[in-house]
Amino acid sequence: MALEKARGLDQSDPLAAKRALFSIPHDTIYLDGNSLGVMSHAVNERVADVTRRQWGKDLITSWNKHGWIDLPITVGDRIGKLIGAAPGQVICCDSISINLFKVLCAALQIQSGRTQFVSTEDNFPTDLYMIQGVERLLGDRCSLTTVAEDDLIASITEETAAVVVTEVNFRTGRRLDLAKITAQAHDKGALVIVDLAHSAGAMPVTLDALGIDFAVGCTYKYLNAGPGAPAFVYVAKKWLSSDFAGALQPLFGWLGHAEPFAFSPQYTGASGIRQFLVGTPPIISLSAVDAALDAFEDVSMEAIREKSLQLMEFWLSCMGDHGLLTIMPCVSPTEGTIRGSQLSFAHDDAYAICQALIARGVVADFRAPNYLRFGFAPLYNTYEDVARAVARLSEIVYSGAYQDKAFQSRAAVT
Amino acid sequence: MALEKARGLDQSDPLAAKRALFSIPHDTIYLDGNSLGVMSHAVNERVADVTRRQWGKDLITSWNKHGWIDLPITVGDRIGKLIGAAPGQVICCDSISINLFKVLCAALQIQSGRTQFVSTEDNFPTDLYMIQGVERLLGDRCSLTTVAEDDLIASITEETAAVVVTEVNFRTGRRLDLAKITAQAHDKGALVIVDLAHSAGAMPVTLDALGIDFAVGCTYKYLNAGPGAPAFVYVAKKWLSSDFAGALQPLFGWLGHAEPFAFSPQYTGASGIRQFLVGTPPIISLSAVDAALDAFEDVSMEAIREKSLQLMEFWLSCMGDHGLLTIMPCVSPTEGTIRGSQLSFAHDDAYAICQALIARGVVADFRAPNYLRFGFAPLYNTYEDVARAVARLSEIVYSGAYQDKAFQSRAAVT
Repeated sequence: MALEKARGLDQSDPLAAKRALFSIPHDTIYLDGNSLGVMSHAVNERVADVTRRQWGKDLITSWNKHGWIDLPITVGDRIGKLIGAAPGQVICCDSISINLFKVLCAALQIQSGRTQFVSTEDNFPTDLYMIQGVERLLGDRCSLTTVAEDDLIASITEETAAVVVTEVNFRTGRRLDLAKITAQAHDKGALVIVDLAHSAGAMPVTLDALGIDFAVGCTYKYLNAGPGAPAFVYVAKKWLSSDFAGALQPLFGWLGHAEPFAFSPQYTGASGIRQFLVGTPPIISLSAVDAALDAFEDVSMEAIREKSLQLMEFWLSCMGDHGLLTIMPCVSPTEGTIRGSQLSFAHDDAYAICQALIARGVVADFRAPNYLRFGFAPLYNTYEDVARAVARLSEIVYSGAYQDKAFQSRAAVT
Repeated sequence: MALEKARGLDQSDPLAAKRALFSIPHDTIYLDGNSLGVMSHAVNERVADVTRRQWGKDLITSWNKHGWIDLPITVGDRIGKLIGAAPGQVICCDSISINLFKVLCAALQIQSGRTQFVSTEDNFPTDLYMIQGVERLLGDRCSLTTVAEDDLIASITEETAAVVVTEVNFRTGRRLDLAKITAQAHDKGALVIVDLAHSAGAMPVTLDALGIDFAVGCTYKYLNAGPGAPAFVYVAKKWLSSDFAGALQPLFGWLGHAEPFAFSPQYTGASGIRQFLVGTPPIISLSAVDAALDAFEDVSMEAIREKSLQLMEFWLSCMGDHGLLTIMPCVSPTEGTIRGSQLSFAHDDAYAICQALIARGVVADFRAPNYLRFGFAPLYNTYEDVARAVARLSEIVYSGAYQDKAFQSRAAVT
């Protein structure tokens, strides 16, 4: 019955045609796109073209001939369209962690005298670690205060250099209110640094409109650019044209120089977002990002969000029908608007249940302490995926199949 | 006649069979492997496998199933074999610039109290820029002194925190004496940081034996791993087991944590070289590095160096035969032992000559102020390449063909 309903929903899904753009194994229901998105055919073709033709045949000339040299900027602008950033404020390079380091240092420089970063206790660890690293490096010129999500806004004061938040919590899927956070921060003279790891490609983001100062994000989750694909960094125009421009961030690399090919011994930062480029970018992986963005070309982020919310609604109703919500309560917000594109459920045996699901072709993931996490990627997940996955989950839970020894041993999975 | 001699040399070349491992366009003589190495068939196949099968079919499970999670370490150890580093001291990740930032900060931490980096005026710019960036960030806790190459050793004093050198000069190909530099540095209590961009894969490097403290290098030149492929960083065992271990470098990223998947809010650095890992590495590009190293598996760096020196010797003798050495004098050291695997020649119209060469299928490059630069990659360059390239160079120079307007306009090429 759920399957019938699912098929009806799929038939009237305006994004249904998008699934054909992706390479999804026949026997897999993939609900882990919030960890690693699936490959599109466009990415596969582009990577082959970049290796065989661009690098293999045109070799060094490709830096100009195939636009490699501008790729961080051109790809950055394409990402910008999905996160509400006008051109010239986003660059695609390095990892989220490295990009976060750049903006943390930029914020401290702008906020001369203020040393405090405020963040949430349950922010994604690398965000907290990078601040701890800056603290280690700069001593009393940097400090980190972490608070519970509910206490965040009240903790932003005149002492705060910047608030550092991930819009969507990686464990619970809770979505923080960026408008309120930004209003409070700016009211107190603090800057706002946002990690969009679980937002970009999953829901509308309006950086310019919100007046966010800096943002970072990755491309290998909802943007489907491949394992460890280069990340992005957003810097609001006001900072790119400020007195700090040219040395806004301290990783002075040769490709961030105003004239990289003059090979001058003295660093002079490029104008605009290019100063945030450091070393030579990994072109094969960066080209994959470019191709992955093709799937977003003719669809609005609003339509993607709409389907994401409906997929999750349907998931919850299916779990309710199977009586699963009392066995493994939902730890994600029940109200869709304050939730990202994932649902997490608590169960003492969440790890083993996750492994049993994977063994049955439903890919989800486990997050400490005891959460079973499902990500919903509207470009390729279907309502039928949902109905079938919940049916398998139900079978595993009620049969106790997850108690099999094979599902107990832990191995690292990102 | 030169061609005949070249064919004889190729026939007795013990590395001759290696060329077949690479994809080289028929109509191209490629002498720019010191900027971007050519693609091997193994890399092409590996990249296709990583996209189509590993990512495309096995998706998130590939982090364990295909060893993605350990790739920075396993690839690092393979690079270690080529640069004289015992296992556990090299990791493949990020760019040279980022890796340099890590070791600069590590050096300052170890050398508490000393603030001075000594380098050469003509070091590759990004190396100088990164120090200038650290200076910007740390203020009077960091300073940079640059001197002429000939004055380097005398400039290392008890004030010096570390000497930062590129073994082979990117413009002239001059190879510095790492043994002497290291002896002087250690005598003065200074550390040694070496950039191996133009050494790794081109000649034997013996980091452990020399007692070098830190090294960085790239994989897209003589290691043929593709445009912007991830770089590497070497940290001597003594520092990895020192009191600083666990927080030797300040870019505290989640994959450098002792337990990345515990998602603890507090950073505790991994033991050993893994602490130098930061964010999620670009797996497609990193896999290309792994595959590119296959070409080095059954050949010694001594044999590669031997052929490199012979190729350059033959090049110089061909240029001499054509009377070119007076028209465009060689600015590289004439003695092979103090030269890397490149030859540079000065000419007022070096840029235009370079363009004219490229138009005739000979790929070289130009470096400011007026150098025409040829790189020699012993795994795929032949003596016939040399004879033919010099003949074309001679024709261009004597005919004045390079004066054609088409060859004058400048565009960026790395």
